[in-house]
Amino acid sequence: MSIMEFTPNKQAKTPLYEQVAQRVSKMIEQGTLRPGDRVPSIRRLSQQLQVSINTVKEAYGFLEDRRVLKARPQSGYYVSARRPAPPAAPSLSRSQISPTRVSLGEVSQMIIRDTLNPELIQFGCAIPDPALLPTDKLARMLGTEARRHPIESVSYAVPPGCEALRTQIARRMVQAGCNLSPEEVVITTGCSEAMMLALRALCAPGDIVAVESPVYFNFLQLIEQLGLRALEIPCTPNEGMSLEALEYALEHNRVKACIVITNFNNPLGCLMPEGKKRQLVEMLGQKGIPLVEDDIYGDLSFDEERPSVAQRYDSQGEVLLCSSFSKTLAPGYRVGWIAPGRYQKRIEALQMVMNLCSATPTQLAVAEFLANGGYDRYLRSIRREYAKKVACMSEDIGRSFPEGTRVTRPRGGFTLWVEMPTKVDSLELYDRALKHGITITPGPLFSASGKYRNCVRLNAAFYSERTAGALATLGRLACELATS
Amino acid sequence: MSIMEFTPNKQAKTPLYEQVAQRVSKMIEQGTLRPGDRVPSIRRLSQQLQVSINTVKEAYGFLEDRRVLKARPQSGYYVSARRPAPPAAPSLSRSQISPTRVSLGEVSQMIIRDTLNPELIQFGCAIPDPALLPTDKLARMLGTEARRHPIESVSYAVPPGCEALRTQIARRMVQAGCNLSPEEVVITTGCSEAMMLALRALCAPGDIVAVESPVYFNFLQLIEQLGLRALEIPCTPNEGMSLEALEYALEHNRVKACIVITNFNNPLGCLMPEGKKRQLVEMLGQKGIPLVEDDIYGDLSFDEERPSVAQRYDSQGEVLLCSSFSKTLAPGYRVGWIAPGRYQKRIEALQMVMNLCSATPTQLAVAEFLANGGYDRYLRSIRREYAKKVACMSEDIGRSFPEGTRVTRPRGGFTLWVEMPTKVDSLELYDRALKHGITITPGPLFSASGKYRNCVRLNAAFYSERTAGALATLGRLACELATS
Repeated sequence: MSIMEFTPNKQAKTPLYEQVAQRVSKMIEQGTLRPGDRVPSIRRLSQQLQVSINTVKEAYGFLEDRRVLKARPQSGYYVSARRPAPPAAPSLSRSQISPTRVSLGEVSQMIIRDTLNPELIQFGCAIPDPALLPTDKLARMLGTEARRHPIESVSYAVPPGCEALRTQIARRMVQAGCNLSPEEVVITTGCSEAMMLALRALCAPGDIVAVESPVYFNFLQLIEQLGLRALEIPCTPNEGMSLEALEYALEHNRVKACIVITNFNNPLGCLMPEGKKRQLVEMLGQKGIPLVEDDIYGDLSFDEERPSVAQRYDSQGEVLLCSSFSKTLAPGYRVGWIAPGRYQKRIEALQMVMNLCSATPTQLAVAEFLANGGYDRYLRSIRREYAKKVACMSEDIGRSFPEGTRVTRPRGGFTLWVEMPTKVDSLELYDRALKHGITITPGPLFSASGKYRNCVRLNAAFYSERTAGALATLGRLACELATS
Repeated sequence: MSIMEFTPNKQAKTPLYEQVAQRVSKMIEQGTLRPGDRVPSIRRLSQQLQVSINTVKEAYGFLEDRRVLKARPQSGYYVSARRPAPPAAPSLSRSQISPTRVSLGEVSQMIIRDTLNPELIQFGCAIPDPALLPTDKLARMLGTEARRHPIESVSYAVPPGCEALRTQIARRMVQAGCNLSPEEVVITTGCSEAMMLALRALCAPGDIVAVESPVYFNFLQLIEQLGLRALEIPCTPNEGMSLEALEYALEHNRVKACIVITNFNNPLGCLMPEGKKRQLVEMLGQKGIPLVEDDIYGDLSFDEERPSVAQRYDSQGEVLLCSSFSKTLAPGYRVGWIAPGRYQKRIEALQMVMNLCSATPTQLAVAEFLANGGYDRYLRSIRREYAKKVACMSEDIGRSFPEGTRVTRPRGGFTLWVEMPTKVDSLELYDRALKHGITITPGPLFSASGKYRNCVRLNAAFYSERTAGALATLGRLACELATS
């Protein structure tokens, strides 16, 4: 095994052990190391790469967490026996690219409601694990900030919202390549209000909105509610929306806006590469089509570095960047935001009429957490946790689901997209799973045209030893459907 | 002076001193006692009415607070010299009742934004005085409730929202004659989200909505945003919407929904009498038109008893009752609610798509305040304060505004509607007042058809000795405009 081409990059933010881990991963991907192979001993790799013993130990530990390697006592590390294959790229069949009037049932509502039932195993809704959230610190900050700002905390945080929070957001987004001033950020009641305001500001009933496929179901419902039409653009599970397909679609349809989750897309978990982000902004910019960019999972990268956002390539104010702290800090705080570019005035006016503004105390608490709560340290720890959970769950899916099942390999976030054999009807699986106290999200919810009947989205945030049995049950139910 | 017909009602919730005060007020209204007259001494009235000395003292104090009486040292109580006259009832000219497409400017936004400027005297926005709000107790409850419910407080309060809060609301609304179960209440982001959801659930673009005239400007903006049309129904300043005018309007227009603020209407402060509430519900019920009832000021009665809501007369689920704690506890908490009758499923589904849900921690804190914060005691004290402020401000308007100015006599809430001589342009007055650091709400905002150019709405919540000079300035500016 030759790993001579390894050159540690001391300027990179990625720590050395992760660079080593990436190198080993690559050799596995390329087939240099195969399932079952023993990897070099810690001492040997340390010599080969000219890094310390501890660095290699950390690297192997990192890969073990992600189930890439497996330690065998008194023997060393081995490449894990079976790794789930990534799903085939969705068909790019062009005939499918036509706008569809959305009409979805109540399943998605049921899945969100399922979260209220503590008896259920939560593989359905894409919510973070509350056990990992900094609940104590947030509770303390809620109280102290309300006392510290007695008048502000009971008063309206009139749009654009609480200044301390907008300042923190603008500062943090520098990491994502954004050059935002606090004045350019508008606080919203979660990312959902941000998306709602964006679509209302940009579109009139009947207009066409281009979305990824599969697409987060709430976008489809919003599009339906506002009387718009969804145009589904195929995605590849590694790089997100196909720009070739988008270009074709834009030529054949009068698209009014485009929604993209650029980083760790829900449900696929894919990361749009830097060059593609730039290309997307340029393509839409040339046609004068605004981009609504959802970056809600951007802080949950499994790598050390936070990916940038497409908004950074925008010079026209035509990208409306939306996000929230619902996946990282506290869904129930309903603290989201939008940087609406040249649509800011319209968005603020709309917000004042629809909801006036968001709750002030939770804005103050989140601002304080970002300023003095150790948000970066906290993020590092949950990112590691979610990476581990995603890896474990993927592997266990490979073990218990029907032969031929495919699973995405997300690079951030905590959702997995599982493609089962075509015989498996995910709506039927949803019903059967619910009888076993397990909730999942069936694939057809992620399409306006009823695609993905044999797919499910699973939330890995709650995956642990405690819930592993439930996943095995789910796999068994899927196997029954596959062979029935 | 004969007050023999006084019979204390010991079963009534109204305390004895207030019954005495009402009796004295009536004699003034009837002209038995005239401005400048000395009222009976405390001892004498106590003997005449067979009540204690203390009861009469309290009654006179109550009337002094409201500027009905004036104490002169060593001499006794006198009927106040001058009381502002109520405005003439708005013209019921039927030719005006035709639907109008709303198109309002940015003045209302500016007025809400003005609240951010602590240098300005806040006579514009209808917000409570933060100095009267229970900020300390709320801040403490925010922290303790978040700690007591660590998981719930960071989790989504999925529609219908936090159960503890819905239970408290259902219990409290018994006082208003409502028979609601907690399951029939849906928590919203303030009353504005409640209204928005109601209109979205009931109407489609182009539909006609009947509203009071003058009408709270945010309703007009909402109607505009949703592409609906407003049909303005005249109000009398004492009893609210004219049912005769409404009946006529319903015969000549296809009205899809009707919005009424039944209790202490904004801006008039009037209270729709019980019989009229019933009649309103019956009239709309017969025509199958849903009523969106806004009761946001219902808890702020100047009398001891809380008025009931029209919803109590509804047996079809066709009244959507909306309210919030923004006028009583904390605007910035954004805790409102709707009891949507038979539209509940639609409202919840809509809310999940538009905003998902409201912030949880503020819901928990308000629920705790209602359960254990002494809300009733607190309400008694602020109601007394607002009654005092409204009375003082009315009287001082009479002193400094141009001859012929008329002012409403609200029976609850804290807004005053001031009708000035026709020469006074309230938009011009707004501009001039702002230069003096005073913000007001010009009358045309309260109409879709540009009425009320010579009217302003004033917020009495901030009226005090500190701001009395600003009111005198405002009066002077109005006088200048009246004589220019």
